[in-house]
Amino acid sequence: MSGHRGDPDSASLRAIVDVLGHGAGEALMLGHVHPDADVLGTLLALGMALEQAGWTITLGGPHPVPAPLRFLPGAERYQAWTSAPRMYPVVVMTDCPNPRRTEGVLDGARRPEGHLINIDHHPDNHRYGTVNWIDVRAAATGEMVYDLLHALSLKITADIALNLFTAIHTDTGSFRYSNTTPRTLRIAADLVEAGARPDVVSDRLYQQRAVDALPRLGEVLGRIRMEEAGQVAWLALPRGAVSDAFAAAEDLVTYPRSIAGVRVAILLREEDGGIVKVSLRAKGDLAVNEIARRFGGGGHDKAAGCSIPGTLEGVTKAVLAAVREALRGAAP
Amino acid sequence: MSGHRGDPDSASLRAIVDVLGHGAGEALMLGHVHPDADVLGTLLALGMALEQAGWTITLGGPHPVPAPLRFLPGAERYQAWTSAPRMYPVVVMTDCPNPRRTEGVLDGARRPEGHLINIDHHPDNHRYGTVNWIDVRAAATGEMVYDLLHALSLKITADIALNLFTAIHTDTGSFRYSNTTPRTLRIAADLVEAGARPDVVSDRLYQQRAVDALPRLGEVLGRIRMEEAGQVAWLALPRGAVSDAFAAAEDLVTYPRSIAGVRVAILLREEDGGIVKVSLRAKGDLAVNEIARRFGGGGHDKAAGCSIPGTLEGVTKAVLAAVREALRGAAP
Repeated sequence: MSGHRGDPDSASLRAIVDVLGHGAGEALMLGHVHPDADVLGTLLALGMALEQAGWTITLGGPHPVPAPLRFLPGAERYQAWTSAPRMYPVVVMTDCPNPRRTEGVLDGARRPEGHLINIDHHPDNHRYGTVNWIDVRAAATGEMVYDLLHALSLKITADIALNLFTAIHTDTGSFRYSNTTPRTLRIAADLVEAGARPDVVSDRLYQQRAVDALPRLGEVLGRIRMEEAGQVAWLALPRGAVSDAFAAAEDLVTYPRSIAGVRVAILLREEDGGIVKVSLRAKGDLAVNEIARRFGGGGHDKAAGCSIPGTLEGVTKAVLAAVREALRGAAP
Repeated sequence: MSGHRGDPDSASLRAIVDVLGHGAGEALMLGHVHPDADVLGTLLALGMALEQAGWTITLGGPHPVPAPLRFLPGAERYQAWTSAPRMYPVVVMTDCPNPRRTEGVLDGARRPEGHLINIDHHPDNHRYGTVNWIDVRAAATGEMVYDLLHALSLKITADIALNLFTAIHTDTGSFRYSNTTPRTLRIAADLVEAGARPDVVSDRLYQQRAVDALPRLGEVLGRIRMEEAGQVAWLALPRGAVSDAFAAAEDLVTYPRSIAGVRVAILLREEDGGIVKVSLRAKGDLAVNEIARRFGGGGHDKAAGCSIPGTLEGVTKAVLAAVREALRGAAP
């Protein structure tokens, strides 16, 4: 944790400036599986800014940009690969705690003598880079890349601002989560001043529901169940009940989380191949990443996840048992 | 529109400082019907700040604080009256464009020689005060009262900050609407620094659903209808279909508004006494307050409302006809 936000003398940030700030070269901006707005917004923003300084930039990762994020400026340049097209002297990864989350694309992406820049705010980051800048106090990697662009004296254009604003907006739940600091809001203010439009971001993220999405959401809401005298709310969806796009767009775990008195909300989605994908959210003091880690997952204190092999029924039982145990260990 | 945000030399703001900033007295903080977070947060914040300076403050209005807003610091002091308990030398009203919206409480509230301070950001404000500070560029009256506290050199405590942050948060839709400016976000940053916690606000506003609220929401979502090739989405709810508290907490008009391609979203709720309450929301360039004004209502360009006597079916037809006409007059 040597990175210090907003402190250009931080050793890690200085090391990144040493790689990116002295003459232009060629770099790969590499995303992780199922890229969200924080990874895409930061890779696109940093890539665009480096291009202003003469760099040649390639962007991609194991999965394509999901449809709701295709409005991000430059998103059309982000490619999906099963392996890296070739090797690059510099690879930048953002918001990725574990290099295995590139599904092997990283393996053939970096020249043996090249740099791997790892910029992240997850506490469980594996420090897999040749330079690791990990700042757990940053609400989003978007805040860190904002600092990096300042340290590199690169101009924040309206397109760059929109990418970074979206990254910060989504990772703070629209400035609602406890990670929202005065600094988060001041950076957001600067980004709006630079041309990011909050209404455009929210229109693209929340106001583009399909006509049939609301009746389907209505059905899903009827499936929420409660446990442990209302402290646990969970939603288990069998394979095919909802599409991946619908599940991602609706952020379904927020609904069980929204019930008064709930301390842990759980979304369990059965996927192809006998895997159940589990999202955990905490309200209050419980750390759900400890629960996720027991099943090989990880994440933040209040938002974590894991993928567990098994049937929907079996995995639901196992996760509920682990949550019950955690509730008993934690002060109410 | 003589008020200038952040400009302490503005004649209107200076006139308010003349009344409130030179020695303490007695004042009534008077809210309008169905008070929301912007009116309550600003009245409570200004009242608390004036008390630090020695003022004697009474708070109230025609309706009580709704349950979801009782977390606002000082909310327990806000009273509901059918008429003012007595006359005050100073009456302050915030976020209220029309004095008739006090249901007559204002009539007996001000001493004949007293001051009526009118602080608002609605473009259709009637300028009914002895001092009128109207700033349509302010996202919320909360921004204006933040400026006023600075102009009065009053300390923003954590409780005051929480009231103002909630006012600004709700009037900007959690920093999502087009009224969110760099200044909005910088004021929010200052308020978080002063002790307002964004996660506490969002927990109280959005994470306190009743156990049966989600299945009920599921049923309501099935009632949304589309018109005009998907440009209009509307939701008509007969009397008793949902409670007032549920309708307010869910902000039901946001659901039809969230569908891609919708330009006008309408919520129609049948109330007791043969009245239908109508909420209108615009996405894009149409001004829905012009539609609301045709039925005796008003509001902002993108969020307006009116109450229309008639049956649910008849009012729905009349409003849809007016919306269709407005759509035909506006560029697509």
